[in-house]
Amino acid sequence: MKKPEMTAAILAAKQRLGLSWAAIAASLEMSPVWTTSACLGMNSMAPAVAERLCQVLELPSEVSLALQACPHKQWDKAVPTDPLIYRFYEMINVYGDTIKTLIHEEFGDGIMSAIDFSMDISRVADPKGDRVQIVLNGKFLPYKSW
Amino acid sequence: MKKPEMTAAILAAKQRLGLSWAAIAASLEMSPVWTTSACLGMNSMAPAVAERLCQVLELPSEVSLALQACPHKQWDKAVPTDPLIYRFYEMINVYGDTIKTLIHEEFGDGIMSAIDFSMDISRVADPKGDRVQIVLNGKFLPYKSW
Amino acid sequence: MKKPEMTAAILAAKQRLGLSWAAIAASLEMSPVWTTSACLGMNSMAPAVAERLCQVLELPSEVSLALQACPHKQWDKAVPTDPLIYRFYEMINVYGDTIKTLIHEEFGDGIMSAIDFSMDISRVADPKGDRVQIVLNGKFLPYKSW
Amino acid sequence: MKKPEMTAAILAAKQRLGLSWAAIAASLEMSPVWTTSACLGMNSMAPAVAERLCQVLELPSEVSLALQACPHKQWDKAVPTDPLIYRFYEMINVYGDTIKTLIHEEFGDGIMSAIDFSMDISRVADPKGDRVQIVLNGKFLPYKSW
Amino acid sequence: MKKPEMTAAILAAKQRLGLSWAAIAASLEMSPVWTTSACLGMNSMAPAVAERLCQVLELPSEVSLALQACPHKQWDKAVPTDPLIYRFYEMINVYGDTIKTLIHEEFGDGIMSAIDFSMDISRVADPKGDRVQIVLNGKFLPYKSW
Amino acid sequence: MKKPEMTAAILAAKQRLGLSWAAIAASLEMSPVWTTSACLGMNSMAPAVAERLCQVLELPSEVSLALQACPHKQWDKAVPTDPLIYRFYEMINVYGDTIKTLIHEEFGDGIMSAIDFSMDISRVADPKGDRVQIVLNGKFLPYKSW
Amino acid sequence: MKKPEMTAAILAAKQRLGLSWAAIAASLEMSPVWTTSACLGMNSMAPAVAERLCQVLELPSEVSLALQACPHKQWDKAVPTDPLIYRFYEMINVYGDTIKTLIHEEFGDGIMSAIDFSMDISRVADPKGDRVQIVLNGKFLPYKSW
Amino acid sequence: MKKPEMTAAILAAKQRLGLSWAAIAASLEMSPVWTTSACLGMNSMAPAVAERLCQVLELPSEVSLALQACPHKQWDKAVPTDPLIYRFYEMINVYGDTIKTLIHEEFGDGIMSAIDFSMDISRVADPKGDRVQIVLNGKFLPYKSW
Amino acid sequence: MKKPEMTAAILAAKQRLGLSWAAIAASLEMSPVWTTSACLGMNSMAPAVAERLCQVLELPSEVSLALQACPHKQWDKAVPTDPLIYRFYEMINVYGDTIKTLIHEEFGDGIMSAIDFSMDISRVADPKGDRVQIVLNGKFLPYKSW
Amino acid sequence: MKKPEMTAAILAAKQRLGLSWAAIAASLEMSPVWTTSACLGMNSMAPAVAERLCQVLELPSEVSLALQACPHKQWDKAVPTDPLIYRFYEMINVYGDTIKTLIHEEFGDGIMSAIDFSMDISRVADPKGDRVQIVLNGKFLPYKSW
Repeated sequence: MKKPEMTAAILAAKQRLGLSWAAIAASLEMSPVWTTSACLGMNSMAPAVAERLCQVLELPSEVSLALQACPHKQWDKAVPTDPLIYRFYEMINVYGDTIKTLIHEEFGDGIMSAIDFSMDISRVADPKGDRVQIVLNGKFLPYKSW
Repeated sequence: MKKPEMTAAILAAKQRLGLSWAAIAASLEMSPVWTTSACLGMNSMAPAVAERLCQVLELPSEVSLALQACPHKQWDKAVPTDPLIYRFYEMINVYGDTIKTLIHEEFGDGIMSAIDFSMDISRVADPKGDRVQIVLNGKFLPYKSW
Repeated sequence: MKKPEMTAAILAAKQRLGLSWAAIAASLEMSPVWTTSACLGMNSMAPAVAERLCQVLELPSEVSLALQACPHKQWDKAVPTDPLIYRFYEMINVYGDTIKTLIHEEFGDGIMSAIDFSMDISRVADPKGDRVQIVLNGKFLPYKSW
Repeated sequence: MKKPEMTAAILAAKQRLGLSWAAIAASLEMSPVWTTSACLGMNSMAPAVAERLCQVLELPSEVSLALQACPHKQWDKAVPTDPLIYRFYEMINVYGDTIKTLIHEEFGDGIMSAIDFSMDISRVADPKGDRVQIVLNGKFLPYKSW
Repeated sequence: MKKPEMTAAILAAKQRLGLSWAAIAASLEMSPVWTTSACLGMNSMAPAVAERLCQVLELPSEVSLALQACPHKQWDKAVPTDPLIYRFYEMINVYGDTIKTLIHEEFGDGIMSAIDFSMDISRVADPKGDRVQIVLNGKFLPYKSW
Repeated sequence: MKKPEMTAAILAAKQRLGLSWAAIAASLEMSPVWTTSACLGMNSMAPAVAERLCQVLELPSEVSLALQACPHKQWDKAVPTDPLIYRFYEMINVYGDTIKTLIHEEFGDGIMSAIDFSMDISRVADPKGDRVQIVLNGKFLPYKSW
Repeated sequence: MKKPEMTAAILAAKQRLGLSWAAIAASLEMSPVWTTSACLGMNSMAPAVAERLCQVLELPSEVSLALQACPHKQWDKAVPTDPLIYRFYEMINVYGDTIKTLIHEEFGDGIMSAIDFSMDISRVADPKGDRVQIVLNGKFLPYKSW
Repeated sequence: MKKPEMTAAILAAKQRLGLSWAAIAASLEMSPVWTTSACLGMNSMAPAVAERLCQVLELPSEVSLALQACPHKQWDKAVPTDPLIYRFYEMINVYGDTIKTLIHEEFGDGIMSAIDFSMDISRVADPKGDRVQIVLNGKFLPYKSW
Repeated sequence: MKKPEMTAAILAAKQRLGLSWAAIAASLEMSPVWTTSACLGMNSMAPAVAERLCQVLELPSEVSLALQACPHKQWDKAVPTDPLIYRFYEMINVYGDTIKTLIHEEFGDGIMSAIDFSMDISRVADPKGDRVQIVLNGKFLPYKSW
Repeated sequence: MKKPEMTAAILAAKQRLGLSWAAIAASLEMSPVWTTSACLGMNSMAPAVAERLCQVLELPSEVSLALQACPHKQWDKAVPTDPLIYRFYEMINVYGDTIKTLIHEEFGDGIMSAIDFSMDISRVADPKGDRVQIVLNGKFLPYKSW
């Protein structure tokens, strides 16, 4: 079973059981962002977590194997088209040099890891309209000199 | 005076006076991210803020005018090359469908605004290596139907 | 059911019943532009509207579910090829800086929303040849500074 | 004198004289959108209009000649980056098939002209935040068969 | 029936009946270029013409409906690869500024229409090798100023 | 002297002397299209023709040398942006397979040369609006088999 | 039968009969390069040659018809990826201006035809490692002036 | 001195002295193709050859140093536009799979080197029009397995 | 059997038999990198090696034939997206000029072969976290001058 | 002083003093690869190292400041053109999936760091032609799950 069929099976089970991503994640004791990304095929799960997911969603073991496989992370277009995703692409390019400047001023030469990395998404109530808050948290990796 | 010369003048003054971005931002009572982005030419300043900045950095009024101008936001390549900036491009594409899925589950159809938007960057101490934390905060905008 | 099959089902029913887009939209008390875009898979419908559409077009409930799903908005090429659509791409690029200049002069720094947005299309009779009139209406969103 | 120097001369005179685009357009008895686009180098002016503009802005005759020249209309990138302009690119692609469908249903096979074309931009007051309204008006051109 | 299946049905019937494009066009009292382009899916036919074509080629009415549909004109690559087609792409780019210069000198600012447009292809006998002659004929459209 | 400076010198002389492209071409006993293309740097002139042009336009001999040089034919973008030139790009792609089909039916496998090639542009009076007529004439080149 | 199925049928027959491309070409009294290119779908064969090929390879007449069809020559990517093919792309770009310079010095302005063209490939024994020799031979085509 | 200035100096001296590329190459006892490519900046010369060239062309020693430098081989566009160079790009793509097939049949898996490589260009007299002959000769390099 | 089906068959057998790539390679007395690349379809195997592989993995002879075929090496995107592979793309571009400079200083003008080439991957234990070590080893190929 | 002027100053001093990259690196007690990359502007130096370099090369302190600046790492084209650099691009794409497969088999899901990374280049004597050996060494970074 490949990742796309795995995702289809998970989405169908999620809808059948009426579970939210938050509920699924809670049953794994993992975060909703990471859980969702693994179910969408962009991260791999440890065996115990994958099996627990299959129990919760009543899915066969081949889904578990697919969840454990290391994904080949691909995207279709250099510039995303969906408006929700494009806005993040825009933020990164509008604020890219700003982020670079401030990280270098604070930490020196290096990068923020996209691997030793976590992300959380939450709703922030606001009388002028609720807001989405996304927290990106990555280890600072200094460039090695040798 | 165009934005690139404005930025060069500000960077030269910042170095000459030995000021950090945090210190410059504090003198304006604004955040470091927004202040830096305006100085790098990716946001415009209100007149009073721009004039205050020119006082702090001992810069002439033509810098203030350039800071007030609405920028034409441009970037050079569809895919950024600098490793620090690329990692954010990668996060957006790896987690793009995840973010989309979770925002839609929580808020319904719509997007997170990149205009009614703020960003903060901070250092999180960690015994295994300090971490960079970036908070993105944007108003949820539901699609209008008509 | 995915959006493309949903669209095919709607187009087949529309042809079978001999209904125009204007008539379908009127039965929903919505505009023709918004109704058409949702049927083509580029907007989502509220449950009551989707169910009403399925009644009007005598379609099963899985079409209604597909109409309610949040679409992943995609297009195939950076530059559209169809002449009718290309002309709009051309207008946007020929008049892009003009639109930007006039909106900034009138409203200050910010953008016109593509989310809190509506569009109408109408025929304007003209003895030298009838004309197409398209009205784009979007909320002005000022850039937040923080 | 080339178009870019012409634009620079006009912008400098406009700022020196404290004139808005609306005021400049009114002095020519033309619309603000068309006037601005010609001053930004994306349309050509008839001789009498160009000379009137140079009188109003106290500019030499070589500016008038540059205003009369037929422009080579160019843009830099297939996908615009500035957020204000990008939103229009997005509208065109999200609603492109919708526009095509509705124009064909109303007019038959053909296009809306981008040449025999006008555009107007206005502010629409709204208690929830003022709105930008853009009206695109182009002659319907039926495909010739032969 | 979609345009590609329509084209396949027409090509099969044309081969079976041993008809040339010129003969098919003559039976419709239309030109070979326009007739061929509609059969290849790049133009739409009026109902009477489409039905006449189906009679001539002994094809069912669903082919007629497909011929009447407004096509979505698409091409695969920005730069064509087939040598015959590429040569025209090359001519357009080598002579593009020349065409622009001479049309503007003769007609003023505007374009030659690609919609109110016809094309003819003929063989010109030549002792040094016969030649292809292609005549492009389009209405001059002056830019509107407003 | 490079081709771009050559073109600038010719355009300045043409304007100073008030000559049309047709008049310049007539003085060389060549066509306006070819003459214009050589002056814009997209064709090379034989020495006698180049010298005659320099006499007519009162230009120095280095312009003549530049006119004689074999050009490196370049264009900036795969897809042209100027509306006048884009329309020809569109025609080529909309009618490319039609042209290919009809040339192969008439001549067999081969191409129309873009080298042993001429082009003429003329105005065709029409009560509904004058038309541009462009004649492309190229030798048919059959593919060699060996 | 389309070209890809034609090629598959030829390759299967070639393998079954244990014939080399040189042997197949010899049976047609044509060169191996041209024969191979026609079998791979990049050239068309005269009827007698195509029928002879089908006799040699014991293939049905629909293969012969497919061999006679004028191909639509296509390639997938602007820059080839296969190392063997890429090296030729590299040669063309590294030596492109050199080839242009030397052809112009010898022949004047014009090109080497890719249509009235032949290619041969042979092995050249060499004690330091055998070499591949490729001979490209094309008619010089002078630019027409008119 | 960088390669572009070196090339300009060589071209100016070549014109001043009225030398052909063949004559310059003969004075170095090297081939015209290699000599031209090194003078155009696409190959490096051994010191003795570079100095001999500077003697022949009466150029200073800094030209010699620039000729000896290892070039950074660059080209501007993925697809060449100049018709003479494009035709070679086309040949490579039309015949790429043919070349690959025949080299593999003759030599096994590997490539023809573009480094241990030579090229010659010559005129072949032909009553139907002289022809350009280009010989590419490269060492076969078998893939190593390990 | 094409390479993709061959790879699928090998991966299924490998999983069924519980063999590592290192074990498979050892059974062939070849390296893991080369063995894996051939099984993934990016290198061809000599007949004896391919047959030995099929014995080890209990696969039919058509897999052996597919392993022996010379691959058409293709990749999907100019810039890889998978983070693991992208990092190597980044290294090559960040260090490309450095590699070029040092190879030229040590060896003179030429390249490192990607054909007469081997690669090894190993784990290097490190108390701060184990490291991946990749050794690239290619023959230096000097540019031929002629 | 920007990085490009810094590099030019270093290259001029290196040539004037007749130093190799290895010798410069030895004087800093750093490796040649890292030293060269920093001098070419692709890495930053600690202050003491930068000052030592300026002493060795007899360069002013502004070069030292430029060496300490965090570089914006950029490259010009998605696919490199220089043959030496292209070969590495090719290796990465031909062996990308192989590297990914073997690293995942050995280490699990994660990547090899391009930041906590070193590279060494050396000459390996070989009677059949000396070889270039490049060692890439990077920390394995496992994906965090959270």
